[in-house]
Formats: sequence, structure tokens, C-alpha cells
Amino acid sequence: MVDVWRGGRLESQHRGHAVICDAQGTILEAWGDPEAVIYPRSSCKMIQALPLMESGAGASLSDAQVALACASHQGAAIHVEAVTRWLADMGLGESDLRCGAHDPADIAERNRLICSGDEACQIHNNCSGKHAGFLMLNKHLGGDPEYVELEHPVQRAVRAAFEEVTGEDSPGHAIDGCSAPNFATTVHGLARAMGRFAAAGGGDARSDAMVRLRTAMTRHPEMVAGETRACTELMRAAKGVALKTGADGVFVAILPEQRLGLALKIADGATRASEAALVGLLIRLGVLDGQHPDALKRLNGPQRNWRGLEWGSLRLSEGFAG
Amino acid sequence: MVDVWRGGRLESQHRGHAVICDAQGTILEAWGDPEAVIYPRSSCKMIQALPLMESGAGASLSDAQVALACASHQGAAIHVEAVTRWLADMGLGESDLRCGAHDPADIAERNRLICSGDEACQIHNNCSGKHAGFLMLNKHLGGDPEYVELEHPVQRAVRAAFEEVTGEDSPGHAIDGCSAPNFATTVHGLARAMGRFAAAGGGDARSDAMVRLRTAMTRHPEMVAGETRACTELMRAAKGVALKTGADGVFVAILPEQRLGLALKIADGATRASEAALVGLLIRLGVLDGQHPDALKRLNGPQRNWRGLEWGSLRLSEGFAG
Repeated sequence: MVDVWRGGRLESQHRGHAVICDAQGTILEAWGDPEAVIYPRSSCKMIQALPLMESGAGASLSDAQVALACASHQGAAIHVEAVTRWLADMGLGESDLRCGAHDPADIAERNRLICSGDEACQIHNNCSGKHAGFLMLNKHLGGDPEYVELEHPVQRAVRAAFEEVTGEDSPGHAIDGCSAPNFATTVHGLARAMGRFAAAGGGDARSDAMVRLRTAMTRHPEMVAGETRACTELMRAAKGVALKTGADGVFVAILPEQRLGLALKIADGATRASEAALVGLLIRLGVLDGQHPDALKRLNGPQRNWRGLEWGSLRLSEGFAG
Repeated sequence: MVDVWRGGRLESQHRGHAVICDAQGTILEAWGDPEAVIYPRSSCKMIQALPLMESGAGASLSDAQVALACASHQGAAIHVEAVTRWLADMGLGESDLRCGAHDPADIAERNRLICSGDEACQIHNNCSGKHAGFLMLNKHLGGDPEYVELEHPVQRAVRAAFEEVTGEDSPGHAIDGCSAPNFATTVHGLARAMGRFAAAGGGDARSDAMVRLRTAMTRHPEMVAGETRACTELMRAAKGVALKTGADGVFVAILPEQRLGLALKIADGATRASEAALVGLLIRLGVLDGQHPDALKRLNGPQRNWRGLEWGSLRLSEGFAG
């Protein structure tokens, strides 16, 4: 789907699968194998947040918090402060999280930790907003503290919602980077779910939740990832479209105006390729200007080395989305 | 060549090309397309250092400096100090380099820079040892300061040596991350060059240089990359074998005892896969214990998330090197 050109020669090549479909799950366009089974990883966070919103447990949340529940944030101050406050508002704290700690991707916050001698904590985990949402749902459901266990009421609710919106029984799950179960589905199933998010118009609990989640994401792109990151930059550039990346080469898009959903998986798991392929598909769908700097830096624009010299560019492979 | 398994299911898959051959360039084993044209990137630094050594320009260098000339180091204190001293010994300084500056991968040095407010300089560039070698050759050749230009005597000497040891006319070049030209060849050509390095026994300038370069690399694995890095760890684990990685999924090995050379390229450019594939081939060739912790962390061993939970492993694909 994506070729890496260097010095006028193909250096590397990424294959993959992509599906564009409507709310009924009808495939409008597809590349690769639409029925390939994948782990959506973090791309399905808006699905994992459905039980929180449709149960009413998250009724009091601000749009920024709802966006954080769908986020792979980079642990910048705005993310850390918002999750800290959210946990405190529930009478909970960092130790109630089960996502594990990792250094924030945000440079300023990383540098602050290094120079102050502080350690990164679980709130810095890119999934801490999703986990705050799990904890809020758990308060509502009255489950035990181990909310990432497969048979815990929180994850049972997530699985049920996931299977309903993908329209498929999940063939199984794996442990995600943040320790929550991640349920497998097909690329088609994931695109179908995004189509349903796109077409949702409110009226029942699920549809209301879908509208709330996609709207919160597009209103707060800074909460869904962070400065310089693809989700944040491309949601600003492609107005009204909700976007979410997932580890190992997954990307999804919700296009409410077009009532379309999109899912793609790079077979080798490369993020540079999932971002380039997504940009290509958004341009094709008419919702992103290919000359926008945040598009060009991921597809077709000059790539530069440490001295600013151009070495090549990422391009769509022949036969894909062009 | 390499499969990424998560939760008992194939999550991602890496294809590629690999060649094992002798000093004559006879292919003993191959996977993928041996004649695929690739950029060796940093994997060919020992070739780029041939003119330095065979001209006699580098005769006074220590083994540690020769290893640095072949290095993609991580800008740790030992690397920065050694390159700084080397430049000073030539009456040169940081501003004579043409590699550009980037933050060091070494955590301690990175943190020192952040907390002291210092900026990373060109000496931190992972290629600064190679560039110190270029500068030393340039002093010998009497070229102008722009030693990374394609038609500069330094790069003309590099290209001539490259084409001779790969046994192929290079079809062209690209600008590498460090701004030097990087000449294209086939995977077979790169493996043939490594076979020549492996079989070299000394006796003429080229053969002496090859012995010196491969020996310096294996004597100073800490100079070729740095702690936790694949080249350093695997050279310690596979004694006597010289190893070098290159960006976008390249790895080479020189096996002097077996008189074999090896080159591989992951088609999508993934480093996790080039490391896993290299480990698989070294095990197959009997020079690496598959149960060594530094092998297991790259192939077959449990991969763990931020809470230490096992999520899966990297495995060789069916039909590759198993």
C-alpha cells in the first residue's frame, strides 16, 4: 500500500488491508483482504468506551474527558492533569490504574521528569484516559478492582459492545500493551463498526453514545494524541472526521458527513505506513487536502535527514487508493 | 521471514531477502530474491572504511577507533569522548563534520544534555565515527572540506571499494541519514562483500584492511553500537562474528571461522524483524545459542508489556531459516 522511495529507488514496501464501508457493513472499496483477522489495538478505543457512555456512567463527563477515554495520549501536561483530576473526582488515584507506567512521549513532560528525578507513573501511560473510563464504568457496575481481567464485568461489557458493532463474534483476544484484553476482528468488521459510528444520529443509548464519542474526538484532537502526532494533526486538517491510530499499523476513520467508516492494517505493523495510507484514503475520500503540510509530511512530501537534505518520500503503491 | 505473534494469533508479518555466501560470492543459501537491489545503509560502514585503512591513512588508529569508524553508535560518553579526541588529534573539530546533529540514543548522555541545557552536536550523530574516518582519509587525499559530495575523492574511493568488494557496478546512490552517499547493490552483492571480509587472511593492503576492520569490530562491540543494542549484544554472544545493522531493515554478518558472509533486508524496513531474522540465521549457522538471553529477547522469547505481562513473541516464518 505504501512505498518508501530513496534516491529515486524503491527502498522499502508496505503491504496491507483497507476497507471503506457504510453503516450496514457494505464494502464500498477494499484493498488487500477485507476478511483478514487483526487486532485493532488502540484504534478501537471509541468502541471500548461505548459501555461507559451508553450505560450512563459517563453522563457527567466533559467532551475533553470523553476524548481522553478514546485517546492514545502522549502524557503531556494537559493529559496528565486531566486524568489526575478525573481519578480524584472519582475518589481514586494512580494506584487504581492497571495500565502500567511508561515514559511520556511528550518531550516537555519527559524532560521535566528527567530533570526533577521524578519517575513516570501509570497516568503517563498513553492509555490512562481509557483506563479512567474503565474505572468509571466499574464504579457504576460495582465490579472488583481488577477491571482488566477478561471475565470482569467491564471487559464483558466491552466485548459485547465490540461484537455488536463489528457485527462479528470475536475469534479471541490478546493482552494489549496497557494490559486490557484486545479483541480480534476482521478489517471489514472494524470498518463496519466505524461506519456505524459515522451514521449514528442519536435516539437510543448506543446511537447517542456514538455521536457523543465521535464528536468529543473531533472537538478535542489535542486530547486524543498530542502535538505533532498524526491523530491530532490530521483531525485538525480533516475537519469533522474522527481518527484513531492503533499499534502495529492500524488506523480507523469515522466520516459522519459521508456516513462512511474506514479501517486499515499494515501487514508488517509499520506506523509510518499506516499514517501514509490513511492520508491517501482521506485525500481519495475528499476530506483532506493533499497539499496540507500535515498530509505532505506523511505522504508525497520531501523527507529530510539531520542536515535538512531531502532523501526521498513515501508514496502510495500502484493500485492502492491513488 | 519473521512473524509477530500476539495472543496465539499472527499479528504482523515481515517478508525479506537473505543470502549466505562464500568469499567467491557463491550462494550457499538464500531466501526471497538474492538479486533484489537494496541500499545497505549503515550495514556497509566497514566497506566505507576500507579506503581509510588500505590507503594507510588510518595506520595509527587504535582498534577502538577502527571499530568506531564502522559504528552506528548511540552517542554515549565513551563514543562522544573518543570521537572528540580523534578529531582533536587531527587538528579538527565538530564543525568539520558533515553528518548533522541528532539527540543521542544513549539515555544517560541524553539526560545529561537535557538537564544541563546543552544541545546535541554532530559528534552525537551515530555516524560521527565513520565521518571522523572520512576526515582522516581526506587529510591523506588532500581533498576539500565537503567530503560527503558524490564526486569528492573520499566518496570516489568509497564507491570504487564498494563496487570491487560487492563485485557489482552500483546502479546508483541515495543520500543517507548522515548525508554521505549510500550506494545501492544487491543483497547478493552485499553478502559477497561480507564473504570476502570473512575469508580475508591478510597479505595485501585490502586483505590486511579487511582483517583489521572485522577484528576491531569484534574486539570492541561496545564501540560499534552501545549497551542494549543488537550489534553490541550479539557480537558479545556470538564470539568472533562481526555484525552490523543498517537502517530500514538491513543486517550483515562476517563469520571468519566459517569463511562466510551474510546479508539480509526486511522488505518493509523493520528493525525488529532484521534483528530477529539475523538471530535466526546465526543460530542456524551454529554461532549463536538460541537460549542466550540476548537472542531470546529478539526471537522466540516472551515479549512483555508495561506491567510485565507476556503478550507474545517474534518467530521465524515457516520456510525461513528454521
